[in-house]
Amino acid sequence: MCELLAMSANVPTDICFSFSGLMQRGGNTGPHKDGWGVTFYEGKGCRSFKDPMPSAQSPIAELVTKYPMKSEAVVCHIRQANSGAVCLENTHPFVRQMWGKNWTYAHNGQLKDFHKALPIKLHLPIGTTDSEHAFCWILDQLHLEFGAEQPKATVLFSFIAKLSHKIDALGVANIIITDGESLFAYCSNNLHWLTRKAPFGQASLIDAEMAVDFQQETTPNDIVTVIATKPLTDDETWHKMKPTQWQLFCLGELVAGSIEDVNATVPAESSKQ
Amino acid sequence: MCELLAMSANVPTDICFSFSGLMQRGGNTGPHKDGWGVTFYEGKGCRSFKDPMPSAQSPIAELVTKYPMKSEAVVCHIRQANSGAVCLENTHPFVRQMWGKNWTYAHNGQLKDFHKALPIKLHLPIGTTDSEHAFCWILDQLHLEFGAEQPKATVLFSFIAKLSHKIDALGVANIIITDGESLFAYCSNNLHWLTRKAPFGQASLIDAEMAVDFQQETTPNDIVTVIATKPLTDDETWHKMKPTQWQLFCLGELVAGSIEDVNATVPAESSKQ
Repeated sequence: MCELLAMSANVPTDICFSFSGLMQRGGNTGPHKDGWGVTFYEGKGCRSFKDPMPSAQSPIAELVTKYPMKSEAVVCHIRQANSGAVCLENTHPFVRQMWGKNWTYAHNGQLKDFHKALPIKLHLPIGTTDSEHAFCWILDQLHLEFGAEQPKATVLFSFIAKLSHKIDALGVANIIITDGESLFAYCSNNLHWLTRKAPFGQASLIDAEMAVDFQQETTPNDIVTVIATKPLTDDETWHKMKPTQWQLFCLGELVAGSIEDVNATVPAESSKQ
Repeated sequence: MCELLAMSANVPTDICFSFSGLMQRGGNTGPHKDGWGVTFYEGKGCRSFKDPMPSAQSPIAELVTKYPMKSEAVVCHIRQANSGAVCLENTHPFVRQMWGKNWTYAHNGQLKDFHKALPIKLHLPIGTTDSEHAFCWILDQLHLEFGAEQPKATVLFSFIAKLSHKIDALGVANIIITDGESLFAYCSNNLHWLTRKAPFGQASLIDAEMAVDFQQETTPNDIVTVIATKPLTDDETWHKMKPTQWQLFCLGELVAGSIEDVNATVPAESSKQ
């Protein structure tokens, strides 16, 4: 399997702290040593850093840890290969263009019979993973459903949630998708999130001897949501998503999702940060 | 204007030496300080490093200089903005997917009236540069001409040469395009290349105090072609391409191009390396 990490924020924010924890799981505190990647959005532009090497030993991962690139949306992935060889074209996140935007996709899980169940016509995969195949299928379906123009976010991501559910039915699919504005998370069996906002507190990584006092690093208006397959800190309260649940974040805030979750978790946690 | 650098090789080869020279022109020995980018292919996969900061001061460029990523095809670009703001979405090279491959595009020059002259329907630009617009137009034209399947390289790149000529007619367009296998260069007014193969010699950068003895760095079977808007070394013989001339390289060797150039330069220079 793999691990996912994503961020949505209302101000350009670096992810050095969370990424420092995650990269340790790529060959050090975790077995996800078959490559890693991260995509940072800056406005409509994005840039990815990828390496088929283990993140814990990667000079590129070290740079990403130390060089604070500030972004409003980030998607990270560390890989433990199960479908497709260990090579660059099979390394997440996958980035493709549609509707004049960069779309980024990362997947944790494993799919069976995906070639047959998810037929593709327009967006052809480059590598051999189930994950890239599923992403291409999603883009094909979006093109067929909505044509040349992107619909409004709630319509679009409700449809993507249905597609995710169909993908999930083929095995396990914890999914992150973003266009840099909206950040969509679908939970198959393993996805957690938290929102950091004022009053900020301290957080300590599980995987490295590192702590940060967000009070010192933020302004009172900052809102930052972090999503991860497994919690990255041991002194914050993470929401555990339920199977088949999806959520949509924009500028750090939860803006749509499966009904039960919106009711259950949004008001409850803001004072615990 | 901008500067271009590209490489085609028959064995995975790093471009640290040439890149070290080029990056100095991004704010140090040259004025191209409005961002830079490089795309490395490894098989069908590719990874890009980009920064809207000047390359001469970029920690990411420093990493690319020091960390030898071995590749059979590379495209680099340093930018001096003339069309579109200085930001990530306007930073070359541009990478998009078609026919199950990654296509990379970089452009030196400036185009007038490109919105009107190069109408786009399918592949919508993300940024505001003339360069990305022209790339999207090329992809649209390829889709219209060849449909769902990539034709053989000579047919494809002869057609791309015609498209490049039409783009060039709007101003200045020195163009590099690659799918990781074939590397295409179109000269508007400023493009040079050389092929390094046995017997190898020494080369010294123009822009930095750096020399390399390729005899020590290669095997006798290595063939590496480097293409640049301006020569990067002062002790090697660079071919200057002629206006409207195009050339196609594969695995380091010239495999097709405008007739006059194939006749004029291929046999002449191999002993001068």
